[in-house]
Amino acid sequence: MTLLVAGQDRWVHERLSASLAEVEGRFTAELVSDLACVNDLVTHVERYRGKMLRPMLVLVSGMATAPAADGAGDNVVDAHRIIATVVEMVHMATLVHDDILDEAEVRRQGTTVNALNGNEAAVMLGDYLISHAYHLCSSLDRPRISRMIADATNTVCEGELLQLANRNNWDLDEATYFEIIRRKTASLTGGCCQLGAILHEEPSEQFGDAMYTFGEKVGTAFQVVDDLLDLIGEEKTVGKSLGRDLAKGKLTLPLIHYLSNVDAARRTHMLALIRNIGGEPDTVAPVNGTSTRLARVAEVRQIITASNSMAYAGQRAHRLIDDAKKALEVLPESPARTLLADMADAVLTRRN
Amino acid sequence: MTLLVAGQDRWVHERLSASLAEVEGRFTAELVSDLACVNDLVTHVERYRGKMLRPMLVLVSGMATAPAADGAGDNVVDAHRIIATVVEMVHMATLVHDDILDEAEVRRQGTTVNALNGNEAAVMLGDYLISHAYHLCSSLDRPRISRMIADATNTVCEGELLQLANRNNWDLDEATYFEIIRRKTASLTGGCCQLGAILHEEPSEQFGDAMYTFGEKVGTAFQVVDDLLDLIGEEKTVGKSLGRDLAKGKLTLPLIHYLSNVDAARRTHMLALIRNIGGEPDTVAPVNGTSTRLARVAEVRQIITASNSMAYAGQRAHRLIDDAKKALEVLPESPARTLLADMADAVLTRRN
Repeated sequence: MTLLVAGQDRWVHERLSASLAEVEGRFTAELVSDLACVNDLVTHVERYRGKMLRPMLVLVSGMATAPAADGAGDNVVDAHRIIATVVEMVHMATLVHDDILDEAEVRRQGTTVNALNGNEAAVMLGDYLISHAYHLCSSLDRPRISRMIADATNTVCEGELLQLANRNNWDLDEATYFEIIRRKTASLTGGCCQLGAILHEEPSEQFGDAMYTFGEKVGTAFQVVDDLLDLIGEEKTVGKSLGRDLAKGKLTLPLIHYLSNVDAARRTHMLALIRNIGGEPDTVAPVNGTSTRLARVAEVRQIITASNSMAYAGQRAHRLIDDAKKALEVLPESPARTLLADMADAVLTRRN
Repeated sequence: MTLLVAGQDRWVHERLSASLAEVEGRFTAELVSDLACVNDLVTHVERYRGKMLRPMLVLVSGMATAPAADGAGDNVVDAHRIIATVVEMVHMATLVHDDILDEAEVRRQGTTVNALNGNEAAVMLGDYLISHAYHLCSSLDRPRISRMIADATNTVCEGELLQLANRNNWDLDEATYFEIIRRKTASLTGGCCQLGAILHEEPSEQFGDAMYTFGEKVGTAFQVVDDLLDLIGEEKTVGKSLGRDLAKGKLTLPLIHYLSNVDAARRTHMLALIRNIGGEPDTVAPVNGTSTRLARVAEVRQIITASNSMAYAGQRAHRLIDDAKKALEVLPESPARTLLADMADAVLTRRN
């Protein structure tokens, strides 16, 4: 997430960059083992490193909930950087475990940890990350913080399981869709912002709830946009193969809206397109260089882009970001508060 | 693990049973979710429930390190029962994740969580267990205990990864074999006994190290015997399909000893038998009702049973149990100390 910054906000941005660099260093240092085979595997985690959204939420929430009055410090303490590292480890663990695939899918994927080292290595690598996250967290000597992290991971697991239970559920409704992403994504981003507020030496308990709301709304919008990009993004720009949600039997917001708002004939046609995408390997029956599966994904994209369901999903994301920014109004004005609002806006314009 | 008890030890055994029943209740209660799909999946954990060795180690270590002088109580506090639940959750999580299989193996297995619900459900169920374990642990408000649990799980993961890195390593040496089981099994059983000693309201720090040694030796012997049973046990008695270690390219103590002590011709013959067991499904080329794979496993069993490598592995287990019992000598005599020694002996005579 690159943000253009200038003038008085620049100092905040530089402080954030310095803290993020510390987080990256700690992340790497925490995972070092005396076993070479463990260190070799951990290097694969690098390819999952991305936007550092969750550490940024912890750090900037910390800055914004206790802005330095005299500009002499950013009021982010070591606990913020520790928890920023912890949440990134938790997030990496879920990404690694998300790449565990079932038999049919293994054949089609090529570059995930499990394709490189087998499903078992991916499971253990994720477990190693989560175990180190809890270890680092308990080094804080603040059991309440450990409980909040464990609470968030409980909820993330529930979200993943709810999503799995709704695989190939072509009648998935909007309420269940939002319940899934509230648990699997927004509970952690909400926790990040709340933790940012309460980790100060003099905890800003007054801002905890507002910051949770901010993080939850931003996380929900982030996931909606993520799902949009999987459906209609440019493969090169997004940086991963598209149509994965459909291949895994996951309905996302534009399709849920489309299926419940079109006439029976269009609904039947769309269901025929998406029902079996997951079962077909890329290599079967290529037509003019495009496989049946990819041709179907392309037709789904075309239909959805031409419908008003894409705009509907975009509007939902916009509303979530508006609500998120409203939650910030309880905070004192500061460059860090402005940065939080900019981060929220950036969720809507991101292309990867 | 059933132990015959009589006379004065009987009271200790009854107290243990009552505590174990509490642990089982708490285990179930902690995992309840507001989502029906989560509760449905959690019921699969029941089939992994077994000997409750790790909770027993916590509880009896607690009894033995602060035996009640007047027989009026067992000095096991609520923290013991909480941690006994936590270690069982951690252990269940590793069992569930151990059942994640790669493509070739999925075809051969029939009753694991992943076979019932796919690899992804097994991954998430394990994550759900581990997350709840940490959450319950942090409810103790004792960060040092949380760190010890996270330390142990870090080490367990390293052991699993070291084992994975040595898959199909037919030159695996004894030192590496013991390093793998020290990390993947003995670090947790050692931690269980140490935690039993230090969880008292007036912590028995003096017994912490001795109890760790006891638990580590018992855990190591337990794993050696587990590996023996996989190789030469009776399928019905053990309760799971045998030869799984070989099918997964895992060398265990009797085979390591055999391969490094026989002449070149026998070594070559044995390697030819075991190298490809993992690649062959049961259903291919059955001969007189026995598949090639099972016939090979049977021949490996025959050779190993007739060699002195079986006896060698048994002696190593015996020596470990002797060392474990020696570690108990620093404790005051008590029925609970006797029970710990009996539990250690039971590791050697178990058949499943």
